[in-house]
Amino acid sequence: MTSSTTEASAPTPAETDPTTVPELVAAATRAGVVWAATSRQDRAAVLDAVADALDAAGGTLVPLAVEDSHLAEGRLRGELQRTTFQLRLFGEVLREGSYLDVRVDHPDAEWPMGAPRPDLRRTMVPLGPVVVFAAGNFPFAFSVAGNDMASALAAGCPVLLKAHPGHLRLSLATAEVVQRALAEAGAPEGLFTLVVGDEAGRAALTDPGVTAGGFTGSTGGGRALFDLAVSRPVPIPFFGELGSVNPVFVTRAAAEARGAEIAKEAIGSFTLGAGQFCTKPGVLVVPNGSPLLEALSSADLPGPAPMLSERMVEGHNRVRHELEGVAGVEVLARGTDAEDGTPAPTILRTDVATLLADVEDLFRECFGPTVLVATYEGSGGNEDLVALAQAIDGQLTASVFGETSDVEGVRELVSVLANRAGRLLWNAWPTGVSVTYAQEHGGPYPATTAPSTTSVGTGAIARWLRPVAYQGFPSGLLPGELRDELDEGADAPRLEDGRLRLSGRER
Amino acid sequence: MTSSTTEASAPTPAETDPTTVPELVAAATRAGVVWAATSRQDRAAVLDAVADALDAAGGTLVPLAVEDSHLAEGRLRGELQRTTFQLRLFGEVLREGSYLDVRVDHPDAEWPMGAPRPDLRRTMVPLGPVVVFAAGNFPFAFSVAGNDMASALAAGCPVLLKAHPGHLRLSLATAEVVQRALAEAGAPEGLFTLVVGDEAGRAALTDPGVTAGGFTGSTGGGRALFDLAVSRPVPIPFFGELGSVNPVFVTRAAAEARGAEIAKEAIGSFTLGAGQFCTKPGVLVVPNGSPLLEALSSADLPGPAPMLSERMVEGHNRVRHELEGVAGVEVLARGTDAEDGTPAPTILRTDVATLLADVEDLFRECFGPTVLVATYEGSGGNEDLVALAQAIDGQLTASVFGETSDVEGVRELVSVLANRAGRLLWNAWPTGVSVTYAQEHGGPYPATTAPSTTSVGTGAIARWLRPVAYQGFPSGLLPGELRDELDEGADAPRLEDGRLRLSGRER
Repeated sequence: MTSSTTEASAPTPAETDPTTVPELVAAATRAGVVWAATSRQDRAAVLDAVADALDAAGGTLVPLAVEDSHLAEGRLRGELQRTTFQLRLFGEVLREGSYLDVRVDHPDAEWPMGAPRPDLRRTMVPLGPVVVFAAGNFPFAFSVAGNDMASALAAGCPVLLKAHPGHLRLSLATAEVVQRALAEAGAPEGLFTLVVGDEAGRAALTDPGVTAGGFTGSTGGGRALFDLAVSRPVPIPFFGELGSVNPVFVTRAAAEARGAEIAKEAIGSFTLGAGQFCTKPGVLVVPNGSPLLEALSSADLPGPAPMLSERMVEGHNRVRHELEGVAGVEVLARGTDAEDGTPAPTILRTDVATLLADVEDLFRECFGPTVLVATYEGSGGNEDLVALAQAIDGQLTASVFGETSDVEGVRELVSVLANRAGRLLWNAWPTGVSVTYAQEHGGPYPATTAPSTTSVGTGAIARWLRPVAYQGFPSGLLPGELRDELDEGADAPRLEDGRLRLSGRER
Repeated sequence: MTSSTTEASAPTPAETDPTTVPELVAAATRAGVVWAATSRQDRAAVLDAVADALDAAGGTLVPLAVEDSHLAEGRLRGELQRTTFQLRLFGEVLREGSYLDVRVDHPDAEWPMGAPRPDLRRTMVPLGPVVVFAAGNFPFAFSVAGNDMASALAAGCPVLLKAHPGHLRLSLATAEVVQRALAEAGAPEGLFTLVVGDEAGRAALTDPGVTAGGFTGSTGGGRALFDLAVSRPVPIPFFGELGSVNPVFVTRAAAEARGAEIAKEAIGSFTLGAGQFCTKPGVLVVPNGSPLLEALSSADLPGPAPMLSERMVEGHNRVRHELEGVAGVEVLARGTDAEDGTPAPTILRTDVATLLADVEDLFRECFGPTVLVATYEGSGGNEDLVALAQAIDGQLTASVFGETSDVEGVRELVSVLANRAGRLLWNAWPTGVSVTYAQEHGGPYPATTAPSTTSVGTGAIARWLRPVAYQGFPSGLLPGELRDELDEGADAPRLEDGRLRLSGRER
């Protein structure tokens, strides 16, 4: 798994001394004053420069990522592309400006609330320094230069980036590229700092100067950090993306019409990246006696694929073992685990009644290449499906596979799932999360600790901002986007006296 | 303070049995399914009907409010007008639709992240049943039918309304008007429920079916409820509006040019409603030796005005006593307290150095008619002012009084204050919060427990919503506002492929 040449040349960072964290936060705070006052155009140019530098460093970073994470080179090269795309996309968001949700109310002596309306103008300001805990399963896209970092920098917040212990050498190398690019682009010193070690991470999250936290990882780890963040003397928002089972519901009509195809795609999705995605489909609800079930039971499963770490292997194998131990669960299909314990993809089977009777033990995340198939009887089985959807907790995603003829039949199911998940999919698999304007990667707890936010897509910038209203201010003291006479580059869409306008320059 | 006729006819509600709360939440959940599926137009019509019913009941409700709260009839009549205006304004927000932040991404095979972009469409859905804790100091506008209730109903969330113990008879009477209007307008049963008693309130906040909490009140009470909300097995968002000092900074130029005028307005603001506003200016930073200071010290203060309750009187008098006991604090002006302890308006005085040396003991909320004047030396005094602004914690508001010639001199002060407060005012007083599109009534803790939100103005609706993305769905299963072919009334502004459009009907 390792190449001794690269290993020799890539140092592992030392743990950050927790007693130095207050200095790092103070430096971030000073940088934040400058950065918040930097124009949107200039911030966008800095993000572009970071993206360019990361692209240029791919030849060094990707091999290091392969060694640290055991993920395939092609996957990691694609992930780096996604990462630099994200940085540039936030540049576009800054230039476009609607994320500021600018609102301008002109004075109105006849305002019907019973008192004259003053001149009020609202925009968004950055929260201040934030700490981001990197994910283990996306060494690029949710790590040092990932979406949390990109969205926070775009918002105007300095970032303390807690490295994930699973890829420390890559984290250090990435941070060096980022910091050099920031410095060369003229960003203030202290804007971005790598923090290594759990103790230093906790010190950062509880430092009085830190204003928010971001996290992608396990439910247990995320909840512990959430508890820290909200029990501070000054509690702060904590945007944790934790666990999700991502159920997939297949109608009988779809299972009959496309059984083999759906089975093949399901196997591709739950084994992708050795099942180490927060959007891995963990439960498939399929009709009993269908070609889909037949195709799953006779599937030619791929062999064991390396996981991120020994800890991941142990965690997966423990949960899989516990699932198998529940009465009414059997193995539908499985290859042979590798000698070192690396798991073979596994399809377990139960029925919806058993699942419903023990949701807590059976409807749970098994991080790795295992999926639980729950069969239902009948032609539609929709009562069972709705009952199951009502019984589950918060999810990142929920998918429905159906035919055109199913639209009316699944209406209630889709409606219930909209109350459980941040993203619903029709005839599509939840893995492979696209980075777009309309993406929503979030959901009720335990999918996240902040159900009104997203950690993927351009909406992620909103987590690091808060509104400020200016009442009766002279133009010269207003932020650029709130003025009547707009400087070039300061324009943004605005809600003016309650009416949306595409530009503040419209008259 | 009381009229025996009205008293006899207005019953005090019994405490809600906490063991019945799960049933109330279950009923709210059932109502929520129907209400969330009700069109924006129909929800707006229901809000209008509630507003009409409250207006029609003013003749009964206002006298009851006078008795329960000891506030003046004119003030309460105005507050009822504000309350029904709020309800109707959220109807407008529903019809206009930009609060949904609709985003539509069409498929794009060439999407530069390295994988094709699917069809993704995002809108907002209601969180589910919420519990709102009514405020004591606004018997109408932040109580049973207040802004939290109006914004939550508009968002599509059922409301359990925890009555404030300070005006229970008014709460019951208001709730009866609301419930009758809701029923007559065809809203589902269980959509709105009055909850009485602290124990029942806590039971509601910790009920598994409740998805968020709203609160306006003291820092201590709000923090205790926040702690409950975030320590649930499933933590939920808690939107608490707690305490604020609302500092006012006056430049020397303004204090020289308009000393008498500013003093008169200051006294009007800090004694308004006996100082019982969360936006009451609590600290005035004024130049030493100025006509403003002279005018404040020789002010003809109004007499004691009744406070909401004995508890309010005791709380105010205790904090005022503690402030007076700090070395370096003296009484600048005060009348004579009433015999029953009702406080006379009081102006205390210290200097900025003393204040800075003991921010924790001196820069604190004294809920009632007391203000602390902190004097500074020098012509501009701006270093002291900036240092003070940097030393304080989160605020709802911060005000600056200055002349045109001060604009450059106060730039840094205004910039620092934007990091401390949700609303900044120029030559204006923070009391008398206008209900508008651009209003921001929020701020970093302890001003609120959720700095990215507002509890006044149309932006308040966002607290009760979360985004859901639909990937690859047939039009017939999409929420109306996400379709390409829009039904009448379903249209809303949208971000389409990253470009804002005023209507989904534009092509």
